[in-house]
Amino acid sequence: MVQRRIPTETVGRLLTYLRVLLCLAEQGVDTVSSRDLGNSCDVNPCVIRKDLSYFGGFGKRGVGYDVRGLIGEIRAILNLNRVMKAALVGVGNVGRALLANPQFEGEGFKIAVAFDRDPDKIGREVNDVVVEDVAMLERRIREEGIRLAIVAVGVSEAPEIARRLADAGVKGILSFAPCPLNMPEGVKVTCVDLPTEMARLVYYL
Amino acid sequence: MVQRRIPTETVGRLLTYLRVLLCLAEQGVDTVSSRDLGNSCDVNPCVIRKDLSYFGGFGKRGVGYDVRGLIGEIRAILNLNRVMKAALVGVGNVGRALLANPQFEGEGFKIAVAFDRDPDKIGREVNDVVVEDVAMLERRIREEGIRLAIVAVGVSEAPEIARRLADAGVKGILSFAPCPLNMPEGVKVTCVDLPTEMARLVYYL
Repeated sequence: MVQRRIPTETVGRLLTYLRVLLCLAEQGVDTVSSRDLGNSCDVNPCVIRKDLSYFGGFGKRGVGYDVRGLIGEIRAILNLNRVMKAALVGVGNVGRALLANPQFEGEGFKIAVAFDRDPDKIGREVNDVVVEDVAMLERRIREEGIRLAIVAVGVSEAPEIARRLADAGVKGILSFAPCPLNMPEGVKVTCVDLPTEMARLVYYL
Repeated sequence: MVQRRIPTETVGRLLTYLRVLLCLAEQGVDTVSSRDLGNSCDVNPCVIRKDLSYFGGFGKRGVGYDVRGLIGEIRAILNLNRVMKAALVGVGNVGRALLANPQFEGEGFKIAVAFDRDPDKIGREVNDVVVEDVAMLERRIREEGIRLAIVAVGVSEAPEIARRLADAGVKGILSFAPCPLNMPEGVKVTCVDLPTEMARLVYYL
């Protein structure tokens, strides 16, 4: 499949449009103007029109964009129509919240395997996923051909888990541990650092 | 109290240094060079030295920075030594994970009140916090003088909850609902949008 290389900033904006469009769809909104979409996304409507016309132009003058249609188009542009298998490491409160979220399949991924080191959790089923022993991590990642993982373990374990995931072939990690993971080149890490985000809010109050 | 206005980018970097220093302290590291701190923070060591010398210069040439000392200094600079009361709305899996996190008091805040609309949850105690009826939100926020809140409810409820929080005097919101909240000026919102972060990783794989 030939895929055009989309600039990082455009990818970011398309993801923002997608998020807002999904919220609009949930609220029962059928069409949206570039102006209203721009207000909600905090993006200039001209930029939205330019971004979308670059991929083919989906709006009708005076009518606006069809919300569901545009969701489908943006998903296709970003190649999110597939459902990629993901691994979850750590089935604590955060891990369980992620397993319980039915929304993710619409986002292009599905948690297919979950690991924990707690014997009380291993073997339990959460939302159709059976928690497996973290000792099996490398083997199962390779068996399932998984390239995407979520790390929801503590700071003391996260760097080691991330290294094992990368060694087993994982190429993208979403980490909830607020510490550097020092991954090799070619592995993309996104860190959801709640304490820092809260500290930032506290600072600005 | 006189406080210098610190540029946004510097605040961001100081928060990153703080995060890495906290991880180092947890790993039992006593001192760190600006070079090693720079590697972990992905910041040029010269920038680190410049940032810190601006506030007084805490490192010793050839010895590096005292990890615990520097944590204290950065907290003082960012005014994070106080512990600010925060409200949590929504005691689902994410909400419970936040309530269970003992780390937050070191970050300058403490969840002091929690709300849910589920009668089965109201009255229950999670980590010393009794879950209250969300109908009491405005009254309790005002009574406690709370200005910081975490919104961990779904997309369908989040905008209304955020509006009520702002009306009651809240000035900073950390939201887990991946939808725009359209807050009035003067209310700072940080959105932790997990589906979008995952979609971004999926796109780049």
